[in-house]
Amino acid sequence: MKDENRVSNAVIKRLPKYYRYLSVLRQMGIGRVSSIDLGRHMEITPSQVRQDFFNFGCSGLQGYGYEVGPLMQGIGKILGMDRVNTMIIIGSGKLGRALVNHRSFEKRGFKVIGMFDVNPSLVGKAVRGIEILHFDTLKEFLAQKAVDIAVIAVPRLYARETAERVIGYGIKGIWNFASVEFEVPEDVAVEHIHFSESLMALSYKLKEKRLALASEWDEGEGSKDWGALE
Amino acid sequence: MKDENRVSNAVIKRLPKYYRYLSVLRQMGIGRVSSIDLGRHMEITPSQVRQDFFNFGCSGLQGYGYEVGPLMQGIGKILGMDRVNTMIIIGSGKLGRALVNHRSFEKRGFKVIGMFDVNPSLVGKAVRGIEILHFDTLKEFLAQKAVDIAVIAVPRLYARETAERVIGYGIKGIWNFASVEFEVPEDVAVEHIHFSESLMALSYKLKEKRLALASEWDEGEGSKDWGALE
Repeated sequence: MKDENRVSNAVIKRLPKYYRYLSVLRQMGIGRVSSIDLGRHMEITPSQVRQDFFNFGCSGLQGYGYEVGPLMQGIGKILGMDRVNTMIIIGSGKLGRALVNHRSFEKRGFKVIGMFDVNPSLVGKAVRGIEILHFDTLKEFLAQKAVDIAVIAVPRLYARETAERVIGYGIKGIWNFASVEFEVPEDVAVEHIHFSESLMALSYKLKEKRLALASEWDEGEGSKDWGALE
Repeated sequence: MKDENRVSNAVIKRLPKYYRYLSVLRQMGIGRVSSIDLGRHMEITPSQVRQDFFNFGCSGLQGYGYEVGPLMQGIGKILGMDRVNTMIIIGSGKLGRALVNHRSFEKRGFKVIGMFDVNPSLVGKAVRGIEILHFDTLKEFLAQKAVDIAVIAVPRLYARETAERVIGYGIKGIWNFASVEFEVPEDVAVEHIHFSESLMALSYKLKEKRLALASEWDEGEGSKDWGALE
């Protein structure tokens, strides 16, 4: 399905970051923002920023910039955030319970309406007023409630099977925390949170900083020695 | 500091994903892999894969592919994973405790050696044998132990202040879960886990799938109607 109004993938990837930054500005009571400021935050050029917004029909005024509110609303609409997305959390261990406590999700229209687990010591308990139900009751639950997104927060070993069951029940959105990849049908959307990839990227950056420091140190030592010889 | 042997940023960003995939292959007992298979997994072309590895001096054999073990080891070294990175977790709530339970970190050389909190009901308790200490004792702790990475898992409101204190104590690596950005000195490395950006990306994908489905449905309906008229 091609659509000339469709925005390019690179722009799409930037939209959540724009949105989050705009929401920070709005919280701070800032009403407008320049492409220079946006570019600095996004680590792209101001002209790339203008191009991004122009792509979806939002142009700022020269020397004035963009209105934070309307820009945020426009991006939110492209991101499908002009509706409530209902979520259930599968796996109510520490991670699942940490996620249900994350208030900013609900503020953005992502509403947790159910929690599930198989552990008898968790089933029946409630988190933020949401009762943890047994995973085996999920099918009945879905017969009564419309769920957009299932959060997979089960141990790695059960992740694939859990995702398959959830998809089998007709859920079209999977937010996966289990560091396991799985194939999904074409009409299902998935996003993964990869803790270990992020940690590896940090490890790389740390190594680079260490090398840079070591090399500066060497250079510094070098010049001192030369100075002493003069 | 420029270095001709340095690998480009785009490649660097792919390395953790390569590494993770190779570790899955190794777990499955698979000893070699083709650039075609790697490309499919990475969603890039096989020739891009070959280019990536060629950049850091690793070339496969035509018609044979790459040896999983050595390739993984080479990438691990570039990522700075040929040493143990010690970590402390600041904020021992559900998220902090979920992270310390994540066994795959330790397997990859990221070793949690301390947990901290300010909540009296948590301080003194232990998770996986690691005692939760009061945040005020962090400075003394650091006088005795070398820490590479501080994980910021405190509530959003305290994140910036926590990061500043930790950096003030000399920690050079920050893994931030708090959805708040902060400026860090040039010799400090940071990685953020942005739950809400990932969730917004999922929302976008879901919306696109819905639109695609609706348009197929329209097309389907359309042809049926025309058929009925004929």
